Amino acid sequence: MEFSSGLLENAVREMSQLPGIGKRTALRLVLHLLRQPAGQTERLAHALCSLREEVKYCSNCHNISDGDLCEICANPKRDGSLVCVVEDIRDVMAIENTSQYQGHYHVLGGKISPMDGVGPNNLNISSLVEKVKEGKVKEIIFALSSTMEGDTTNFYIYRQIEAYGVATSTIARGIAVGDELEYADEITLGRSILNRIPFESSLKR
Amino acid sequence: MEFSSGLLENAVREMSQLPGIGKRTALRLVLHLLRQPAGQTERLAHALCSLREEVKYCSNCHNISDGDLCEICANPKRDGSLVCVVEDIRDVMAIENTSQYQGHYHVLGGKISPMDGVGPNNLNISSLVEKVKEGKVKEIIFALSSTMEGDTTNFYIYRQIEAYGVATSTIARGIAVGDELEYADEITLGRSILNRIPFESSLKR
Ligand SMILES: [Zn+2]
Ligand SMILES: [Zn+2]
Repeated sequence: MEFSSGLLENAVREMSQLPGIGKRTALRLVLHLLRQPAGQTERLAHALCSLREEVKYCSNCHNISDGDLCEICANPKRDGSLVCVVEDIRDVMAIENTSQYQGHYHVLGGKISPMDGVGPNNLNISSLVEKVKEGKVKEIIFALSSTMEGDTTNFYIYRQIEAYGVATSTIARGIAVGDELEYADEITLGRSILNRIPFESSLKR
Repeated sequence: MEFSSGLLENAVREMSQLPGIGKRTALRLVLHLLRQPAGQTERLAHALCSLREEVKYCSNCHNISDGDLCEICANPKRDGSLVCVVEDIRDVMAIENTSQYQGHYHVLGGKISPMDGVGPNNLNISSLVEKVKEGKVKEIIFALSSTMEGDTTNFYIYRQIEAYGVATSTIARGIAVGDELEYADEITLGRSILNRIPFESSLKR
């Protein structure tokens, strides 16, 4: 692609660093911003920079939060002895949206995936094991996507915590195997949490 | 969508102002930026703001340019008496990419579209008519998309300039080189038959 302006080329290159945004799409987006009032570009730039600089993660569950504890962990009505383990905050949002769950979450920040260079130490696993060791947790609910990486991650965590006598479960597979949680409809997703099954029995299938 | 952080909600809202970017996609893009080094977000924000603040348009053809004249208009080897009228700078880039054209362009900035509130005065039409009046132009090539709005815009410009004795042409519409006839749409195929060219001249290309 030949650009008539270095400023334009630079903006398109940076925009096309985003996942799923090719050069053509990036150019379309950038030209759109040029047709809008300058304030729109400034607001976008400021919002992204503010988030990136000031983002905080909940000290208890690693959810993105504006304070030390996220609203969920800070809510005394929520049951901290029930911990739902999820891959990222989109899964927290998806489950919260069902209004079916009153426990806490634990956001791993990914799945174990040696192919992508993601090992257990790159994820928020030790803080989860610590919570279990402290005896604060009665039940761990695994809600990772049912891919090979998800299963590997579930099993890795299971082996770390099984000695501490905590109950484990996985969300019911009302959700199609291989589907991402965030795209599931609310009723199916809500039901799959209510009908969770012991982790041991999920291994037999 | 319930966000656990106002900063996150703000970033997603601004990102989803972009055309074709829904809330889910915006969230995915914003979370991606959070996983990358902060420099990537800063570079993106800076590139967009720099472009928006410092963008210039070529005083001759309205192409986006870092100087008063774009590289095409500033190039003495290009023929300024031949002017290709296009909708936006993506069309300039597409035609430049063919390396087949050595004239100038005139970027209208859109098409006449009363439904979208775009009239002739919202487009760079008067400067084109002015160029023709000054006698600098021998031929105008219309290269707008062949939609109703494109045809309307072509015709509007044609009526403004026909008195000045300038030649006018439109780019050939036909079957793409290498395409099978049976898969072509009827309108394109019909037009390619009506606008057939002498076989001898097709051999010269
Ligand atoms: Zn929390
Ligand atoms: Zn120019």
